[in-house]
Amino acid sequence: MNIVVQKFGGTSVRNLECQRQVMQKVLRSHREGNKVIVVLSAMSGETNRLLALADEWSDTPDAAEVDSMVSTGEQVSCALFAMLLKKQGIHCRSVLGFQAPIRTDSAFGKARITDINTRHLLEMLEEYDILVMAGFQGADENNRITTLGRGGSDTSAVALAAAVDADVCEIYTDVPGVFTTDPNMCDDARKIERIAYDEMLEMASMGAKVLQIRSVEFAKKYNVTVHVRSTFSDELGTIVTQEDETMESVLVSGIAYDKDQSQITLVHVQDKPGVSAQIFSPLAEKKILVDMIVQNPSKDGKTDMTFTVPRADVEQTIKTLEALQYEIGFEKLTSNLNVSKISIIGVGMRNHSGVASLAFQALADENINILMISTSEIKVTCLIDDKYTELAVRTLHKAFHLEEAETIDQS
Amino acid sequence: MNIVVQKFGGTSVRNLECQRQVMQKVLRSHREGNKVIVVLSAMSGETNRLLALADEWSDTPDAAEVDSMVSTGEQVSCALFAMLLKKQGIHCRSVLGFQAPIRTDSAFGKARITDINTRHLLEMLEEYDILVMAGFQGADENNRITTLGRGGSDTSAVALAAAVDADVCEIYTDVPGVFTTDPNMCDDARKIERIAYDEMLEMASMGAKVLQIRSVEFAKKYNVTVHVRSTFSDELGTIVTQEDETMESVLVSGIAYDKDQSQITLVHVQDKPGVSAQIFSPLAEKKILVDMIVQNPSKDGKTDMTFTVPRADVEQTIKTLEALQYEIGFEKLTSNLNVSKISIIGVGMRNHSGVASLAFQALADENINILMISTSEIKVTCLIDDKYTELAVRTLHKAFHLEEAETIDQS
Repeated sequence: MNIVVQKFGGTSVRNLECQRQVMQKVLRSHREGNKVIVVLSAMSGETNRLLALADEWSDTPDAAEVDSMVSTGEQVSCALFAMLLKKQGIHCRSVLGFQAPIRTDSAFGKARITDINTRHLLEMLEEYDILVMAGFQGADENNRITTLGRGGSDTSAVALAAAVDADVCEIYTDVPGVFTTDPNMCDDARKIERIAYDEMLEMASMGAKVLQIRSVEFAKKYNVTVHVRSTFSDELGTIVTQEDETMESVLVSGIAYDKDQSQITLVHVQDKPGVSAQIFSPLAEKKILVDMIVQNPSKDGKTDMTFTVPRADVEQTIKTLEALQYEIGFEKLTSNLNVSKISIIGVGMRNHSGVASLAFQALADENINILMISTSEIKVTCLIDDKYTELAVRTLHKAFHLEEAETIDQS
Repeated sequence: MNIVVQKFGGTSVRNLECQRQVMQKVLRSHREGNKVIVVLSAMSGETNRLLALADEWSDTPDAAEVDSMVSTGEQVSCALFAMLLKKQGIHCRSVLGFQAPIRTDSAFGKARITDINTRHLLEMLEEYDILVMAGFQGADENNRITTLGRGGSDTSAVALAAAVDADVCEIYTDVPGVFTTDPNMCDDARKIERIAYDEMLEMASMGAKVLQIRSVEFAKKYNVTVHVRSTFSDELGTIVTQEDETMESVLVSGIAYDKDQSQITLVHVQDKPGVSAQIFSPLAEKKILVDMIVQNPSKDGKTDMTFTVPRADVEQTIKTLEALQYEIGFEKLTSNLNVSKISIIGVGMRNHSGVASLAFQALADENINILMISTSEIKVTCLIDDKYTELAVRTLHKAFHLEEAETIDQS
């Protein structure tokens, strides 16, 4: 049995006309001899409408009840789409989270999938040609409805593909695929044909918002081939898959950026054991996501501690730390809101040296000062003045020849 | 454990303000020491909105998918109401059909309840003080969502009350209870304090649309005491319960009427075995509900056959039968659209003679001609010219002294 999973977002199912377009893609895959699992989101706007109702009813709406309510969005879009297919004579049915079942933990609003009943899914695929499955939702062990958090439908699709060992998990979206960088910022941006899970994880977390990060983690864990492609055309998109030699032959896959960062520096921190915990634990408790952290070499028992936080959290970060000034023991706190984070990503870095220095040189040639640097195995990240964001992206894109087609080793 | 079931319709839960009013009733019952099962309908208008969507998507929408979609109406109203209760510190949760579970057959759109998991319900009642349960819906043995048909929430409430052996099943509605006749037609109409299941069945089917007929059948079968009362006041309504001596001491409980009837007569039908089946089977196949049937004594091997059908079905009835004129063998077909059905209902009739003749005399005194008569153990029905409907209702109401308080045997 050849199985294909196809996931469509809220914009793609928002009305009858859009659903008819989606149907053409589903029917084509069906005609090609595949059993198809269609994973749908709620019609766009519906989830927000329901959440607004919850907010009207209570300033602290119960998370379990919110999930039960919000899950109706997919319930409606799936039923409608199944009606459409049935009208074409297709043997199909809608399948809700609790019906599959897609078992999750009980973290309402941000549940994690713990188990999918593969046997039941395969039985249904024997009986039906197409299953129209609700994304974003599951049921906990007490059979209460849970949701996986915003963008959870991507994760549903990948998890279902893993459970039934699908040939591919196609994620349909409003862009043609994953690009070497933001096409709005750089005319030379090019669609990537194949990208490794790890690269995609770095791209996604850096703001290339094509796929939900968790779905990529899931795909990596279960080795699901994901095909990100456009709802509005038939051209091939980007294949997200296991790292292979082809990818390694490419030095850098893409340039990501994130303008939503701010830099905080604690000047002349007492350099004593446990001081990092003293600084970052209170921030973690407030759910402030600290990203880059740099500690300068200590001098006279004092050090400077610099890090970045999302711009929305700057105020609270400053308030929290200034309240602890005496306890932590720092001289003063400075902040810089006008910063931007640029990352160069590529699994090829693992086996090639000189990527970082090439990047630094390229930025230096344009007189772009680097405020902070942080590196990982497959990523080099620089913090720069945000007015240079576009210039930096374009410069690095050119420096690594990303406008050229990928080097495909066809030997 | 004292358990009370309280059912509220779509109008009662249509917005936040209404739900707050409903909450006061629920909280009062809770404060009185009861565990409460609240059964809710969808917010008014929601079911129709969803059905309209289904109609837009398909001219023959799949019934199973319609049920899955329409059931979201109760899912939303229950989640919202549970949020409201939670905000008051009440330990409660929403419970959907598949979660109870309320098991039904697979007749989507008009499913019948086959089983309710009493043990699970009682366990939940041990844990929670209030359960907010979705009316109208269940799940079949494949765990697909079903609905019980319009007004099915009444049936859900009664079935749940039966399952947990509740003290009472309170059905909240927009009228104060069941009346001796339509108050809009007769100023003397009086609220009935207690009414027997059988009387209620006759009242309901005759157009006193307070309770769904099936819910009354269910209540009778499982001996559930139903209290029909107003959402908008605190006064007691009408208790629908087992027939007892008090009720039998009352000759007549109420006068019902139905203006939606038409009379059809087949003149000079060949009086041969099987002719009734020849006439009524084709109508049954077309789902035409034939009500009163009278066959005149045969004369010269010919008889006249008179019956009533809903006014909306007259045209199809005539077309169907005229097409079979030769086969059935009748001389001509006459119809009368201007008729009305008046019924006198009371379990007291079982032990008292003279009810029918008293009724006929009262109508005769007002020169109201009786076109057809049909009687059962607890009901006398007369077909009359519809222009006399109001007069007949008022006359009979007075003739049986229904404006007076019930004779309660307090010995």
